[in-house]
Amino acid sequence: MEKLTIIKVGGKIVEDDNDLNGLLADFAQIEGYKILVHGGGSLATKIAAQLGIESRMIDGRRITDAETLKVVTMVYGGWVNKMIVARLQSLGINAIGLTGADMNVICSVKRPVQTIDYGFVGDIEKVDTYRLGMLLLQDTVPVMSPLTHDKQGNLLNTNADTIAAETAKALAQIFDVTLIYCFEKSGVLRDEADDESVIPTIDHDLYLRYKEQGVIRGGMIPKLDNAFGALAAGVKRVVITKASAIHGNKGTVIQNRFSETV
Amino acid sequence: MEKLTIIKVGGKIVEDDNDLNGLLADFAQIEGYKILVHGGGSLATKIAAQLGIESRMIDGRRITDAETLKVVTMVYGGWVNKMIVARLQSLGINAIGLTGADMNVICSVKRPVQTIDYGFVGDIEKVDTYRLGMLLLQDTVPVMSPLTHDKQGNLLNTNADTIAAETAKALAQIFDVTLIYCFEKSGVLRDEADDESVIPTIDHDLYLRYKEQGVIRGGMIPKLDNAFGALAAGVKRVVITKASAIHGNKGTVIQNRFSETV
Repeated sequence: MEKLTIIKVGGKIVEDDNDLNGLLADFAQIEGYKILVHGGGSLATKIAAQLGIESRMIDGRRITDAETLKVVTMVYGGWVNKMIVARLQSLGINAIGLTGADMNVICSVKRPVQTIDYGFVGDIEKVDTYRLGMLLLQDTVPVMSPLTHDKQGNLLNTNADTIAAETAKALAQIFDVTLIYCFEKSGVLRDEADDESVIPTIDHDLYLRYKEQGVIRGGMIPKLDNAFGALAAGVKRVVITKASAIHGNKGTVIQNRFSETV
Repeated sequence: MEKLTIIKVGGKIVEDDNDLNGLLADFAQIEGYKILVHGGGSLATKIAAQLGIESRMIDGRRITDAETLKVVTMVYGGWVNKMIVARLQSLGINAIGLTGADMNVICSVKRPVQTIDYGFVGDIEKVDTYRLGMLLLQDTVPVMSPLTHDKQGNLLNTNADTIAAETAKALAQIFDVTLIYCFEKSGVLRDEADDESVIPTIDHDLYLRYKEQGVIRGGMIPKLDNAFGALAAGVKRVVITKASAIHGNKGTVIQNRFSETV
């Protein structure tokens, strides 16, 4: 199978022009097929505030009412996505910016209300392997924003880590997929305050132990759940690393022992 | 040659939810290959004002500084474009939202400063017939926002009428193209105050005469220049009509006599 690298880049890198340009230059150098998935970060919160729309977060997740949906679509699907596409074009990469609605590449369901009503938030149902595969084979490079749709006319705010993982899982059927989560830290850290304390490899047992001990917590938990889920579904390699280190052998390699635990 | 219909829809229709839904339902019914080109209208001005960014217009054209570019990219390339794509998907149309930067489908040059510095405004240099043709042949329906890029990393605000005309001209090489400009009036009017005074057909001689007499003026002039230019370049049929009448035989049909005058 041909190699496909999926890079997910977090909101903080997107917000810093120098960091973003560095990341895009590194991304442009990746050989073989590739996809970039981006978050949006606090830019949406900032724009929402300027527009007089209050941002409500519960457990780090944005409550997306109709007005907030408009803002995240403008910021993530508009400015951030198209700015990245234009810059990649200048680097000779034939990028194409996508939400899940475009070509229906990712269809979601609006998250059902249980204790919390998250509003226009999507839980992914289906990634269109055929459409994404066709784009890749035509030497275009998808740049995916954290938005999907429900095929009933609604856009849905969708977690970028999950988009990266679900896309990787779907495309693992036809490509040898490496999934790299890159963010502002050097990897999964033993001590959040010490960027040198990278855990070089982690399997599912070690993950569970670290989680119990409180070494791994917060936003790293869903990221690792996504990572182990991706490996279990046939993704070859998952790495969590610093945005500036996507070409190195640094960061944390997630190891596939998931099958033992399910 | 296979039929291709290109519909350009103006900003005012985009702003009215009912009008837009009616237009999209009609658009979905068009047989054969099709492309939708949309403007953005005053929504960008409204959002800019809320963000404390002053909108400056000269002769009806927006001066696009860096901050304004961000706003139009958010509004036109983000909210308006993706909202249309999501709604078309709900109507069973496999839409894909594009700026000129996506797949490099439209490359422009930043308008040179002569007497006026329009800022980040693009004059179209090249429409990628191959890429757009491939999308059409794969049964996807491009939805084009009024943004292009310079392939040097900059997005450029670009007139939607011109995008429609240049796309029609480029694709006339491989399709039998009909270009329909639809807006809030019934066609080119003899009397702007009387929506019944539609001029049913207009050729270039009549256009010049009406322009001299002041019957045709303002924003209709660049629209008609685009229309005649499109016919001269091989587009089969150009119509200016009301958004609600794209399936009727109403509106103004532009007739190809341009070749006599160049």
